[in-house]
Amino acid sequence: MKTNPGRFFEDYRLGEVIRHAVPRTVGQGERALYHALYPARGALYSSDEFARGVGLKASPLDDLVAFHTVFGKTVPDVSLNAVANLGYAEGRWLKPVWPGDTLRSESEVIGLKETSSGATGVVWVRTKGLNQHGDVVLEYVRWVMVRKRRREVVVPVAVPELAPVVDPGALVVPEGLDFSRYDFDLAGEPHRWGDYAVGEVIDHVDAVTVEEAEHMLATRLWQNTSKVHFDVGQREDGRRLIYGGHVISLARALSFNGLANAQMIVALNAGAHANPCFAGDTVRAWSEVLDKAETPVPSVGALRLRLVATKGAAGALRGPEGKYLPEVLLDLDYWALVPR
Amino acid sequence: MKTNPGRFFEDYRLGEVIRHAVPRTVGQGERALYHALYPARGALYSSDEFARGVGLKASPLDDLVAFHTVFGKTVPDVSLNAVANLGYAEGRWLKPVWPGDTLRSESEVIGLKETSSGATGVVWVRTKGLNQHGDVVLEYVRWVMVRKRRREVVVPVAVPELAPVVDPGALVVPEGLDFSRYDFDLAGEPHRWGDYAVGEVIDHVDAVTVEEAEHMLATRLWQNTSKVHFDVGQREDGRRLIYGGHVISLARALSFNGLANAQMIVALNAGAHANPCFAGDTVRAWSEVLDKAETPVPSVGALRLRLVATKGAAGALRGPEGKYLPEVLLDLDYWALVPR
Amino acid sequence: MKTNPGRFFEDYRLGEVIRHAVPRTVGQGERALYHALYPARGALYSSDEFARGVGLKASPLDDLVAFHTVFGKTVPDVSLNAVANLGYAEGRWLKPVWPGDTLRSESEVIGLKETSSGATGVVWVRTKGLNQHGDVVLEYVRWVMVRKRRREVVVPVAVPELAPVVDPGALVVPEGLDFSRYDFDLAGEPHRWGDYAVGEVIDHVDAVTVEEAEHMLATRLWQNTSKVHFDVGQREDGRRLIYGGHVISLARALSFNGLANAQMIVALNAGAHANPCFAGDTVRAWSEVLDKAETPVPSVGALRLRLVATKGAAGALRGPEGKYLPEVLLDLDYWALVPR
Repeated sequence: MKTNPGRFFEDYRLGEVIRHAVPRTVGQGERALYHALYPARGALYSSDEFARGVGLKASPLDDLVAFHTVFGKTVPDVSLNAVANLGYAEGRWLKPVWPGDTLRSESEVIGLKETSSGATGVVWVRTKGLNQHGDVVLEYVRWVMVRKRRREVVVPVAVPELAPVVDPGALVVPEGLDFSRYDFDLAGEPHRWGDYAVGEVIDHVDAVTVEEAEHMLATRLWQNTSKVHFDVGQREDGRRLIYGGHVISLARALSFNGLANAQMIVALNAGAHANPCFAGDTVRAWSEVLDKAETPVPSVGALRLRLVATKGAAGALRGPEGKYLPEVLLDLDYWALVPR
Repeated sequence: MKTNPGRFFEDYRLGEVIRHAVPRTVGQGERALYHALYPARGALYSSDEFARGVGLKASPLDDLVAFHTVFGKTVPDVSLNAVANLGYAEGRWLKPVWPGDTLRSESEVIGLKETSSGATGVVWVRTKGLNQHGDVVLEYVRWVMVRKRRREVVVPVAVPELAPVVDPGALVVPEGLDFSRYDFDLAGEPHRWGDYAVGEVIDHVDAVTVEEAEHMLATRLWQNTSKVHFDVGQREDGRRLIYGGHVISLARALSFNGLANAQMIVALNAGAHANPCFAGDTVRAWSEVLDKAETPVPSVGALRLRLVATKGAAGALRGPEGKYLPEVLLDLDYWALVPR
Repeated sequence: MKTNPGRFFEDYRLGEVIRHAVPRTVGQGERALYHALYPARGALYSSDEFARGVGLKASPLDDLVAFHTVFGKTVPDVSLNAVANLGYAEGRWLKPVWPGDTLRSESEVIGLKETSSGATGVVWVRTKGLNQHGDVVLEYVRWVMVRKRRREVVVPVAVPELAPVVDPGALVVPEGLDFSRYDFDLAGEPHRWGDYAVGEVIDHVDAVTVEEAEHMLATRLWQNTSKVHFDVGQREDGRRLIYGGHVISLARALSFNGLANAQMIVALNAGAHANPCFAGDTVRAWSEVLDKAETPVPSVGALRLRLVATKGAAGALRGPEGKYLPEVLLDLDYWALVPR
């Protein structure tokens, strides 16, 4: 058979490195589409002039363009037979992605554990996104539940130890970045790093009702080919599941209203796609400041933010038994760089 | 509170200049999206070669890309609490916008007048779009009805005097533009400036049925964040209002059929969004030649055009009491440059 | 009348060459949109680095971007009054289209034949796509059934002789193309030219449910203005007919799964849009290897492929009377270049 049936749980070997297919050159077109698909307004990713004003050579592609592009390449090898996308950890953005860069992805299998049912197993991979110079621009750990082909196969258990949060000392400030002449008027809000307090919660006010065409355009743009996003025949209810990363980008873009100066994502500490999102849902977002840290660059601070997307009003996250309430779509924990 | 609640009527001061946020670099991606979103076929904006053949260095971005980009930036400061977009005047395109240019916007408050109800007021602003060199590429006056926060506040009345039409002597022909070797075959129609007569009406034949995903992609592309365009919870009828500028671009693109040589918009004399447009509406357009003028460049003439978009058949504009008929969406008055 | 009513059958003259309007510069934006509109993953069209690795100066625009752009320009002159798009033959891609190239189209009328009803006639045209240097990048023959304005007009019959398949000796391998250091990991599949057997059938597994916004964005992007694709008022059933080329691109992109190394389309032997496609249809595809050929470049082989798109399961193509079954959308016959 010449087509790709996807890997099953017992097809992964601990320590194996998978070179994912289809490198991708990203540029002005992907930038424009990102702005059409999401209400993105971060000045650093919108304007070459603004980016030069903070020490970069030009406006890089949005951090999430890098993430989605790198992630999309892993789908045929990692999640084609996945039952669930369980989590993220130890994500770090190491270099900006510039228009014209070509990205490819590699994943190392770092953990394997059969589930109690015997029908599935959890696979942990550490994925790296590399540019045309071989520099790692992004890395993260992701774990998914994958079907077994045959129940009786026994796979040795290996569960990786993962940091619950990326240490602020490990955050990489892009070369040259300097917020000392940051233009707060043009950025859209006056709030500096010092204006945010740990525990502060921000309701991002705006909301977007999602259409089928939009999430499919986005998901194809990242060359993510998981059938559930495109084919109404994949689910019994005839609905197309929206790619979780689409909700991440929607929520991040909505968070501009209150976090306009949380310019660059530099780490992904954790993330859960709490409930599925479908066309017709109206997505809102709120953020909580979880922590604050300095960086080696005096004008640049870091905020650790929880970003929550819901399809109802902002409110409680979890029900009595600790489970996410049905209106919660996303619970993401990340570090962003903010002017001090 | 860190989020933007928008300005209310009493927050504006006569003479105040607002520097709007989020500068934007526009380029090849925005051009491609413009062609995907609208049935745009103007040769000058489609082909670098055609543009060079008429004396420009390359194909600029469509005049309405410039307009929507500049307009979008004003929304958070001018129309977030607007009840209605009342009119445009004195609009002039002063420089082409080239791929790679970065646009930002500034608005001066030039008029304020409370409405008789005491609950709202009209705000007039003169908005300028500037490129990265600080050159004004576009300017126009717009007035909107904005909610008051508190009825009892008294704001001094100042109503600006606005020209009913931009004087043809004030039209700016882009540097180098020369239609003397204009290729009418490649442009798509043989009609010159001299072939159009004042009073002539052209039905543009084609029609487009609008989808939700399309107008939201467009409106986000211009970073216009007005909630009514995106969130079904904003109106009691659960419908998303289509950004008026989307209708302007649709109608202008449809007008190719009969006005293929009305290449460049150089002035906006007036405009009314007569009735709201919603997804599912089928938009048509017709034009009337209102006036003709020469320009300092012998090969370049100007036509003053009324562009009307409807969601029914072309026909009467206004009912017995002078109100727009319900099928009229747009009534726009502009000057365009045409080969002589 | 200033608008274009389209040509009727008796308006065509044998041997006449029509220079089609609206040249178009294509680039990074069109590439990004192509990836958003179709699940395209061919490495050669996704990555500049991959393209350089096989001897090209950069990643060209997808062969079907060239085809749709050239085709779109012919619509106002060839198919505005067409009743049906009957077939394609003798299509050849002669030069890659690079970002920044400007394309225009010319068609020569090579055949005319009235149908027995007397109300319509078949028009054959040979269309050429030319770049800014005047090089032909693509040529193909297409024939359509066009309405007559007046039944009584007699048009002399001239039916062209067309090759049933492009001779493999006439296939043009792009200058510099060399698959000897082809990276099969990055391309996504290990299968070489030698691994495919004549008669082999590949079910491409994936499926895409189509939305109205998507096909309209695509069709506008190619500046194809045929009303039936955009205006719900054009058909009695109120449905918008999807541009046949949209189905070609969908099917070609789906065929990645099993034909990831069938990188470049170099000839179009034949094609039938067997049944109309509408929004809501879920499109699948399968391919059959019809023939194999060597090329003058030792590392480059050619496969002649039949690409069939259906809106149901893959299965029989034709019913008892030789007619296409109602679920068949497309039956395309083309040559593609594959590493040996």
